[in-house]
Amino acid sequence: MSSTETPHAPSSRTTVKRSPERGRYDRETVNAIFDEALICHVGFVADGSPFVIPTIHARVGDILYFHGSPASRMLRLMKKGAEVCVTATLVDGIVAARSVFNHSLGFRSAMVIGQARLVDDPDESAIALEAITEAVLPGRWAEARPPSRNEDKGTLIVAVPIDEYSAKVRGNEVSDEPEDYDLPIWAGAIPLSVTAGSPEPDDRNLEGVEIPESVKAFVASHTPVDQ
Amino acid sequence: MSSTETPHAPSSRTTVKRSPERGRYDRETVNAIFDEALICHVGFVADGSPFVIPTIHARVGDILYFHGSPASRMLRLMKKGAEVCVTATLVDGIVAARSVFNHSLGFRSAMVIGQARLVDDPDESAIALEAITEAVLPGRWAEARPPSRNEDKGTLIVAVPIDEYSAKVRGNEVSDEPEDYDLPIWAGAIPLSVTAGSPEPDDRNLEGVEIPESVKAFVASHTPVDQ
Repeated sequence: MSSTETPHAPSSRTTVKRSPERGRYDRETVNAIFDEALICHVGFVADGSPFVIPTIHARVGDILYFHGSPASRMLRLMKKGAEVCVTATLVDGIVAARSVFNHSLGFRSAMVIGQARLVDDPDESAIALEAITEAVLPGRWAEARPPSRNEDKGTLIVAVPIDEYSAKVRGNEVSDEPEDYDLPIWAGAIPLSVTAGSPEPDDRNLEGVEIPESVKAFVASHTPVDQ
Repeated sequence: MSSTETPHAPSSRTTVKRSPERGRYDRETVNAIFDEALICHVGFVADGSPFVIPTIHARVGDILYFHGSPASRMLRLMKKGAEVCVTATLVDGIVAARSVFNHSLGFRSAMVIGQARLVDDPDESAIALEAITEAVLPGRWAEARPPSRNEDKGTLIVAVPIDEYSAKVRGNEVSDEPEDYDLPIWAGAIPLSVTAGSPEPDDRNLEGVEIPESVKAFVASHTPVDQ
């Protein structure tokens, strides 16, 4: 997807209403946020009430996938093709302004609204399961024991098309009222990132089994650089 | 709130259905998750469709507060006392199991379902605004320029009672199938945390203005310890 892509026209449902200058309507921005986020929050309506559930997801092309057990409330509804809103949010910093009113967070958020579809093609299920594992820990699929036939049966995969979408992006810049810049108050940002600690091996690992490449690569890419 | 509190009986809406052994129904657990999370995701129903919006929140006693501009879709609905589901999730680690199927995240998630109420008492609004600022950056309220009368008018505060709630908690422990423990595959967890980088001062700070205590304290409490 090239960066010169023409943004699609947002629907009234996905148009950013508050701080509209922060709205982004190109697929590239939306995809990048879903790809970086470890989890998303899935919203749906059950008996007229809203529900919001955190879950792991993966994007394959223009489709978001997530999985669950047949027992979950969400998955039972998805079977009927319920409408969902899937939102992923990355918090990039705390913005400390001179005035209380202009304090904020730097963030990137992506939202998709669409009709969920239960995946019943085994080939598509297999692609989605691998993508979900790889989305969390790239390279792990090839290292771990593959799913058995029974495990495959015990997992439901849901697909949501990325057709109706938008993003909202705020950087870590400070924006104060003109008259406040003369105040002797420190303003600035505290950048935030998700950081990995040292891997904690399971007590029951066999002797001589080493930390695998997937874990080493994840830790290396989630280590703070400036401290 | 004492740790020996009797858990309340969850409603059918807040009962954890998938992996029910991970459900927590005591207020202390729910409060701690909302207090630690920098943002939550608010779900609501508009014209029959689900919406999920990220926002900053604060808890004061048994009430969750968040704020917004009169222009936002969410805030306009809240004026009518719409039902909302507020979910906050902390991701504590990536759990790498021996089998693909048992990969997971360590997480703590809290959910509240309730009727939103627009705050119209100026005293309650003031308490909520201070709590929201302090929830993100403790100590900052006293350092920054207080809100003016016009800024107060431009902000709507929404309250949601923490009456119908639950939490779901999964640690970073590995749980594999009995027969998989003989496999020569590394299993374990990668602990994750939200980490602060070095504060980035605004270019327009007056000369001699120092990094304030609130920022120093936040950075000190969000620095990785084991690297």
